[in-house]
Formats: sequence, structure tokens, C-alpha cells
Amino acid sequence: MDIKQRFGLKIKELRKLNGLSQEKLANLAEIDRTYLPTIEKGERNVSIEVVERLAKALKVKIADLFNE
Amino acid sequence: MDIKQRFGLKIKELRKLNGLSQEKLANLAEIDRTYLPTIEKGERNVSIEVVERLAKALKVKIADLFNE
Repeated sequence: MDIKQRFGLKIKELRKLNGLSQEKLANLAEIDRTYLPTIEKGERNVSIEVVERLAKALKVKIADLFNE
Repeated sequence: MDIKQRFGLKIKELRKLNGLSQEKLANLAEIDRTYLPTIEKGERNVSIEVVERLAKALKVKIADLFNE
């Protein structure tokens, strides 16, 4: 798996742990609700600003999104 | 400091710890040698693919680039 796929799976895992829908997480992270599903599928080369917004929305540290 | 500035400072810190010039690190990470200085200045919203290449070049985990 490449970095985009690993990142997408981690977002999906943490979103479900938090009991959030894709739409709810997208709202919290202030990203387009059509963008989040493509992130979770590992199709997006996400920027660090979006990484930070997702971490805040999921209430984790940025580093936690990259821990194996 | 925003995420771009914090990331840039971390890259600069680890690059110096490794005794690398900007040009050498850019070569190792396969990024343009004119791009790295702007990353270190906190001017770039770097993608996770570039983050991964910088981590490999600096011989650290991706998470280490985001630890405070």
C-alpha cells in the first residue's frame, strides 16, 4: 500500500471509531463532502493543511494519523 | 505558527542534525532543489507523498516529522 492508501485507511478507521459519518467528518474538517470518500479510498495526495484539519476533527495528533 | 511553518522548521532541524545541505536533501528526497528552501521557510502546503519522501531521506518515521 502506498502512503495515500495507508492514510485513507487510517482516516476511515478513526472516523468509524468516532462514530462519524463521512458527511459529518467532512463538515467537521471543513472539506468538501465529495472529497472525503476519495481520501478514504486512497486516491488523494492530501496536503498537510488538510491532514491537520482531519486530525483536529478526529481529536488526535497529526502524528497519530501516520502511526502504523 | 501554522502547520506549514512547523513542518518547515522540523525539516530544517532534522536536515541539520543529519549534516545535509539543502541540495543534498532535495536530491535524496527527489524533490526540486528550489522547492526545499520554500518548504523550510513554511511557504508550502506539502503533500503526503512529499512528506513520505522527506521522511525516508531523513531516515525517520513520518510521524516523527509531526511530533512537537
